[in-house]
Amino acid sequence: MARHRTAAARPDEIRQHNLSLVLRHIHGDGALTRAELTQRLGLSRSTVGGLVSELTRLGLVEERVPTGGAGVGRPSHVVGPRRGGPFAVGVDIDVTRVTVAAVGLGGEIRARQVFDTEAGTLRPEHLVELIEAGIRALGCSGHADGRQCGIGVSVPGTVDISTGRVGVAPNLGWECVQLGELIVRSAPGVPVVVGNDADLAVLAEHQRGAAKESDDVVFLLGRIGVGAGIMSGGVPLRGRDGHAGEIGHNVLDPSGPPCHCGKRGCIEAFIGDAALLATAGRPGSPAGGAVASLFADARAGHEPAAHVVRAAAEPLGRTIANLLNTLNPERVILGGSLAALLELARDDVQASVERYTFGSATRGVQLVVPALGEDASLLGAAEVAFADLLSDPR
Amino acid sequence: MARHRTAAARPDEIRQHNLSLVLRHIHGDGALTRAELTQRLGLSRSTVGGLVSELTRLGLVEERVPTGGAGVGRPSHVVGPRRGGPFAVGVDIDVTRVTVAAVGLGGEIRARQVFDTEAGTLRPEHLVELIEAGIRALGCSGHADGRQCGIGVSVPGTVDISTGRVGVAPNLGWECVQLGELIVRSAPGVPVVVGNDADLAVLAEHQRGAAKESDDVVFLLGRIGVGAGIMSGGVPLRGRDGHAGEIGHNVLDPSGPPCHCGKRGCIEAFIGDAALLATAGRPGSPAGGAVASLFADARAGHEPAAHVVRAAAEPLGRTIANLLNTLNPERVILGGSLAALLELARDDVQASVERYTFGSATRGVQLVVPALGEDASLLGAAEVAFADLLSDPR
Repeated sequence: MARHRTAAARPDEIRQHNLSLVLRHIHGDGALTRAELTQRLGLSRSTVGGLVSELTRLGLVEERVPTGGAGVGRPSHVVGPRRGGPFAVGVDIDVTRVTVAAVGLGGEIRARQVFDTEAGTLRPEHLVELIEAGIRALGCSGHADGRQCGIGVSVPGTVDISTGRVGVAPNLGWECVQLGELIVRSAPGVPVVVGNDADLAVLAEHQRGAAKESDDVVFLLGRIGVGAGIMSGGVPLRGRDGHAGEIGHNVLDPSGPPCHCGKRGCIEAFIGDAALLATAGRPGSPAGGAVASLFADARAGHEPAAHVVRAAAEPLGRTIANLLNTLNPERVILGGSLAALLELARDDVQASVERYTFGSATRGVQLVVPALGEDASLLGAAEVAFADLLSDPR
Repeated sequence: MARHRTAAARPDEIRQHNLSLVLRHIHGDGALTRAELTQRLGLSRSTVGGLVSELTRLGLVEERVPTGGAGVGRPSHVVGPRRGGPFAVGVDIDVTRVTVAAVGLGGEIRARQVFDTEAGTLRPEHLVELIEAGIRALGCSGHADGRQCGIGVSVPGTVDISTGRVGVAPNLGWECVQLGELIVRSAPGVPVVVGNDADLAVLAEHQRGAAKESDDVVFLLGRIGVGAGIMSGGVPLRGRDGHAGEIGHNVLDPSGPPCHCGKRGCIEAFIGDAALLATAGRPGSPAGGAVASLFADARAGHEPAAHVVRAAAEPLGRTIANLLNTLNPERVILGGSLAALLELARDDVQASVERYTFGSATRGVQLVVPALGEDASLLGAAEVAFADLLSDPR
């Protein structure tokens, strides 16, 4: 508060705050008319006009006449993110694939580079090279020639988001990796933020996806590992060290299948990608679309594949029920392979959820797939990379 | 914001806000010197003096010279809650006991009335009579002759705190009980707040107990039922309907002991009071100190009792580990029978927690017993009953 009392700083701070607000609305909702902005911000039309002009001069937004629309009369101009304006680099590390994308304001993925990797072989130094190569390739393609305002990285493991340090990423074989520092060294002067994949996914879905209207939401992400990103009251629940949601090794059944962590019956040992393939009698690396082809076979009515899907529905439902009992969200988003499981066995999943949920915590709970599809973590990574620009557009 | 711009209202609102702040500090921390208040509030000495005078005139606080203390020179006067000032009625419904207490500002329990009940026989109408009888008895004893500023009720079940409606309280046999309304009808004009026992316990421990310095904390309460109260970032985590923390029927082992809910291997079927007694070969109602005498036997080295305690340590540790993985708190408070389990088998509990916790979520996590002992839920109930007075002391 003391700072606000220095008379000189104040008007400038208010201006910055208002510029930030306008940019956040446009970033979050895409194109908006000046009238909509005026109404949302409770500011005068001329103030909004001035703010839009400044954001235009800064190369962040542009006004245009929307195409399409069935209305008669003169169409309203809308203010939207500028095409070719600044972009964030989003990096999504999956165990068998690294995606590097240029993401514009408004969450538009302008272009992406995908690198396949073999499970368990990706070293942090190699990842940094992939990110550099990806950014170079995006630049050459002409999709990343604006101002690069940050790099956001999604990691399948525990991350201290304030330092960018990865604690444990078991499926990468990483422990105590100063990933943020490594990337900063390769891209000096560029802000770098590292986060957990499920935490970033729920952030993106809350910002512009399936949880836009939900403040109490869980994103359950199933790839090789299984983890949850949690929003409570519209705020990310991170816990003491940012490790909240690391439920993949919660034990569902102490006499269940052995898990690579040394225990038996972990959630991951029932519904992680490797577990699904093992149950299907297709052991080996979940790379190269092995899980996708399992689901394709199930869709085609191939009985052994369909059986695997049905068998996974019960432990998936129990995992969801435990989260409902603990967190009482209004919506659960199932991402990665769990989206396909939900799609293929919704009734079985729902029945298991109901069986294992206490009281009315299940009533009206929506099980949904990510509106952003497989890109939720990638877009969440870009989202955190935009943070500095959004809070101070100048 | 608009309201704050009406010139007339503003000074009065600021005054109310500041009175509320001073009262909250005194309520939370007990007696404070004027100098401490001045420093904490960042207000001038004369403003603080004026606020203290007004709170004194309102009969809420009083200044006194603290007794004891080894200092030399003139002792500072301290401002503390007024003895005989207003009180809240805290009601703690346990399955076999109802406690009604008069609680003063500062969290002082002035007197209590305890009613034993038989498990499963307490009807809501009977509870209302017990509360009335309790309040009458407290008044006759002279401990409740100040201004009664509200009734707070702790229930072992799901509660919508905004309406006072109990959803499910399985161990009471209650479903969909408009408890808040029933109590209001019996005590017209008195504010009534109803909450879940573990939620209220974590509130009280965060306010003035074992979680005073912790903003990410879980209170795991084990009586006949088992439930958790959760604080995340200093804010109660309630979820969509206020049912968060209802983990008692999360399944630890699908081939575990049968649970009264129809499933097998629920947390409650391993570490709830009835389960502990059943394992000890002492089936029957957990009323009348049966669990306390089990723990007394274990303390005395009675082998079958000690065995029950040791056997409960593993599932208790796993329950805690699941909470650590999901919520990553810095502190877990074990209340009710779980406090005794921790005290009697800390090493076994800790080993189980470590075995089942992912990554570093367990590192430095403190397992503690409630600073408020068995009174955490009772004091939490009084706490919510004080809410109106604290926000507007006039």
